[in-house]
Amino acid sequence: MAKTTKHHPKINHDPGLGERYLNNTKRIINKDGSFNVARTGDGLFWRDTYQNLINMSWFKFIGLIIILYFSINLLFGSLIYFIGIEYLSGIEPSETELQKFLDAFYFSVQTFTTVGYGAIAPKGIWVNLIATLDALAGLLGFALATGLLYGRFSKPRAKLEFSKNALIAPYKNSKALMFRLVNKRSNILMELDATVMLMHLETQPNGEIQRKYYPLKLETKNIHFFPMNWTIVHAINEDSPLYGYDLEKLKTECAEILILIKGFDDTFSQVVHSRYSYCPDEILENKVFEKIYTINQAGDILVDIDKIHAYREV
Amino acid sequence: MAKTTKHHPKINHDPGLGERYLNNTKRIINKDGSFNVARTGDGLFWRDTYQNLINMSWFKFIGLIIILYFSINLLFGSLIYFIGIEYLSGIEPSETELQKFLDAFYFSVQTFTTVGYGAIAPKGIWVNLIATLDALAGLLGFALATGLLYGRFSKPRAKLEFSKNALIAPYKNSKALMFRLVNKRSNILMELDATVMLMHLETQPNGEIQRKYYPLKLETKNIHFFPMNWTIVHAINEDSPLYGYDLEKLKTECAEILILIKGFDDTFSQVVHSRYSYCPDEILENKVFEKIYTINQAGDILVDIDKIHAYREV
Amino acid sequence: MAKTTKHHPKINHDPGLGERYLNNTKRIINKDGSFNVARTGDGLFWRDTYQNLINMSWFKFIGLIIILYFSINLLFGSLIYFIGIEYLSGIEPSETELQKFLDAFYFSVQTFTTVGYGAIAPKGIWVNLIATLDALAGLLGFALATGLLYGRFSKPRAKLEFSKNALIAPYKNSKALMFRLVNKRSNILMELDATVMLMHLETQPNGEIQRKYYPLKLETKNIHFFPMNWTIVHAINEDSPLYGYDLEKLKTECAEILILIKGFDDTFSQVVHSRYSYCPDEILENKVFEKIYTINQAGDILVDIDKIHAYREV
Amino acid sequence: MAKTTKHHPKINHDPGLGERYLNNTKRIINKDGSFNVARTGDGLFWRDTYQNLINMSWFKFIGLIIILYFSINLLFGSLIYFIGIEYLSGIEPSETELQKFLDAFYFSVQTFTTVGYGAIAPKGIWVNLIATLDALAGLLGFALATGLLYGRFSKPRAKLEFSKNALIAPYKNSKALMFRLVNKRSNILMELDATVMLMHLETQPNGEIQRKYYPLKLETKNIHFFPMNWTIVHAINEDSPLYGYDLEKLKTECAEILILIKGFDDTFSQVVHSRYSYCPDEILENKVFEKIYTINQAGDILVDIDKIHAYREV
Repeated sequence: MAKTTKHHPKINHDPGLGERYLNNTKRIINKDGSFNVARTGDGLFWRDTYQNLINMSWFKFIGLIIILYFSINLLFGSLIYFIGIEYLSGIEPSETELQKFLDAFYFSVQTFTTVGYGAIAPKGIWVNLIATLDALAGLLGFALATGLLYGRFSKPRAKLEFSKNALIAPYKNSKALMFRLVNKRSNILMELDATVMLMHLETQPNGEIQRKYYPLKLETKNIHFFPMNWTIVHAINEDSPLYGYDLEKLKTECAEILILIKGFDDTFSQVVHSRYSYCPDEILENKVFEKIYTINQAGDILVDIDKIHAYREV
Repeated sequence: MAKTTKHHPKINHDPGLGERYLNNTKRIINKDGSFNVARTGDGLFWRDTYQNLINMSWFKFIGLIIILYFSINLLFGSLIYFIGIEYLSGIEPSETELQKFLDAFYFSVQTFTTVGYGAIAPKGIWVNLIATLDALAGLLGFALATGLLYGRFSKPRAKLEFSKNALIAPYKNSKALMFRLVNKRSNILMELDATVMLMHLETQPNGEIQRKYYPLKLETKNIHFFPMNWTIVHAINEDSPLYGYDLEKLKTECAEILILIKGFDDTFSQVVHSRYSYCPDEILENKVFEKIYTINQAGDILVDIDKIHAYREV
Repeated sequence: MAKTTKHHPKINHDPGLGERYLNNTKRIINKDGSFNVARTGDGLFWRDTYQNLINMSWFKFIGLIIILYFSINLLFGSLIYFIGIEYLSGIEPSETELQKFLDAFYFSVQTFTTVGYGAIAPKGIWVNLIATLDALAGLLGFALATGLLYGRFSKPRAKLEFSKNALIAPYKNSKALMFRLVNKRSNILMELDATVMLMHLETQPNGEIQRKYYPLKLETKNIHFFPMNWTIVHAINEDSPLYGYDLEKLKTECAEILILIKGFDDTFSQVVHSRYSYCPDEILENKVFEKIYTINQAGDILVDIDKIHAYREV
Repeated sequence: MAKTTKHHPKINHDPGLGERYLNNTKRIINKDGSFNVARTGDGLFWRDTYQNLINMSWFKFIGLIIILYFSINLLFGSLIYFIGIEYLSGIEPSETELQKFLDAFYFSVQTFTTVGYGAIAPKGIWVNLIATLDALAGLLGFALATGLLYGRFSKPRAKLEFSKNALIAPYKNSKALMFRLVNKRSNILMELDATVMLMHLETQPNGEIQRKYYPLKLETKNIHFFPMNWTIVHAINEDSPLYGYDLEKLKTECAEILILIKGFDDTFSQVVHSRYSYCPDEILENKVFEKIYTINQAGDILVDIDKIHAYREV
């Protein structure tokens, strides 16, 4: 941290991350934008059922549906098997017990999915009642699946990709901290706004060590359009809390550059937020970013979003 | 209430809760964030059908679906029974009347759910017509259920838990009123903003008693991030309407600390509001909150959201 | 209009309603909040299909579904009838042509709804192909109906009821224009904001008649909470464009009080707008509103939303 | 560009479109509001599956569903054909191989759609298992289609139509740049806000050519209501960067008038953005817009949205 710290504008409160937890903590904002905070408490899982079902991977989600599909039909199939498959018409006689169970199971499948071939059909009040509930369970189950599939598909997923490194490069008559971001999806994002803070440990006059937060002033804090990439620049001049910085010292102070991007997703008509952070070992000196776009003969601008991380020596 | 009331900044209008209803009213904001206001008027129930169906408990909702399912099939089953089950093919002859009615009922179930085994099938124009309407009713009914299930699941449900008590503890060279909140779900909440007001009864110079509202200035009115808990602090200094407060007097004045939290739910991309209030008997003096998180060996921060209410003597 | 018009703050542009259309126009904002503007242009109907389907009455919507249901099945039934019902197995022989057509029609119904009893089943490549398309049409049709039903149910419908009349009553040492509103649904509305304007015709120095707009300053422009009713008050003092008003003169000037309410629906997490207007003949002098709520023995506040229009002599 | 450029307020950063790509680029904002920027990168297609399915034309979308419908049934049909159609009951014997394959295919269709006539029904464990999976695939497939159909229908589609040309006409004692817009749908749009910028190439003192951006001040930057059309006016007075403009010079400078409209769609309760731009060859001098509305005998205002482009000589 610069020696001139006390002259810099300080955020007069922490941004919601606390001042007192310390020392052996890892980075605060993980690379995927989540916070390095685990939560415990009663019934936390069930409180988040919908969100879990929406956010789990497609592989897990489809797997879960298949497991539930077979389980429910095993349940209803067993019920019918124990009542007796003589209440199913169309069953061929003289079968093994396994065969009988499979008949009951497949009858349940045909009811649960409402296929109802009818080659096997229910007889008598009890099997008919079970079939009645089986079909209801099936319809409600697939109603649920419909909602979940829609929820999974339609959740806003504007995904900003940040450059792996923040760079420190000559800028005007001084230096500047720079990083950049690109929209990995083709959603149209607009009205982006960036907030950047420096967080580090500071020893108080009374010897206590506290986390402190300083805003980093940006050359451009917000943009109207975001069709390509955006390079965010903080000039390290005399007004900057990074003035006279020392990357090694920042490392021992557990410093972290915290970034909050807010924008409007014009495709889903929703406000989106993105969080990111750079630790001192991700900050490189005397590098500049490579251009991310080319212009072809026809005058079209071509952006290669995989080049977002590319930099070169000054 | 402090004697210095007239020097304090007063909200020049009430925040929407009225000035004149008085005396024997209970608390204004209930513990679940609803207002202690009942509404009457013509057709109020039907105006809110969707909302009622979305907000009723899962137990009631599933129960309602099952009741409707059986009722509609009883209706269609009865219609067919009265037309005569001789228009159903595949029925075994020489049955009792109950058996005949059950056949008609189960035929309706098989049509309404579109299972359609076909062991029982319609014959003739009228039963076919009823089956046509039965299947349409079934498909629309389950279409409705699909929408309602999705609506129930996807409604925003960021649930803030407030500490049971507000505490008054030493703060800087004076005292402060403190309470805290935690996010009970794993939704990511951001950009929280708090508004806190003191409401109490005041005798006007003309002897009239009115409800009055005073803003309480906060040390931190808004935070960017909310991964853990947030302790909201109002310093009780000379500028505070609580300066020289007397809990007993506040009680007789029907005082209430009104709290409005506004935030952005980054999981559902929606703005969320939360209301809460503290009455004087929920305010404790000379207590401070217990820490809600621990840091383990690996440097991970562990938050126990069940500890939100914990406090200790100063 | 007051003679002091030229001293009053004027909105330096119209709020989007135009300055030049004149004289024989009716009121601008209708009682249901829509604008008194009809639009023509190519293909306007089809551009709004979804919205029409969402906003039509339930009676019309259900009717439309039933008509489409029968029409599509008549279409597929006719196709099968012309191919020949000998390609349907299970048909009883020696029927009339009507009977044959009905068999084809009901077979289509059983396919379209996916009931598929199987008592009538397709034979041969062509009828099977038609059944294949019939079932696809049915499934997509009901998928559409599912979405539309959800859309109809879940559309935000916070419905503000305005008092039928705006009242002019004594207020402080002068008079005030007052009207009030109540939430007709049990949605929780918050953070309401009101904008009120006076619109009237004015003769310009060059003799041209133009529509002019003046903001009306409100005692309370926004409220945090809205559990009951909100009375909006514009004091008619020397700063008001209504100072020295004359209702008869306002009538000849085609004056209209335009009201725009903006709020946040915390139930649907959506911003809602409401428009309303009062013409001079809906403004009553020397009346005040009746109280809309009572407080019972238990201290509960009871709001009767049907009393919103009630007023009495001063 | 005017010679007085250096005296004009300059936006101190570009609005997100970059300063350095140059010369042979085409217009930046296309006529449909998209940016003239192509993006490449790994897996870009799959990242946007949902959006592609939502935005493709109805013709393509229905075609895709039909192709998938037949493909999946061909797949399941083939599986059953290779297992052997002797495991299907109800098949008529002595058929050709094509007939056998068609039986398997139509059996799959009847299962996938859950029609399940039952004239053909599965026998034995393996065909039953395939039917079990076939029905599951069908139900999930149609669940997906339901969600996509709803997503396609309910996506916000407020569509602003801009006049084909921007006009320069006499205005007050000078001239003004004018263009207008109309809402092509019957969605109610409110609280519109316009941002207009001039972008052009500028030769820097060091000879480098850069894109520069200047805000254009509007007579009316925002309106409350938008029932008809809105004419946006930029007065070309001494404070305007267009003062002393020369259309030919602007052409060689690749100038472009960039427009960003933000509004609130009260029908879908969503914020909507619209982008547009005018190149110098779309700017006409000494023209004014024709009136877009008429008032009939009954006093109704009739807007003909097809007239939005109409202008006439001054």
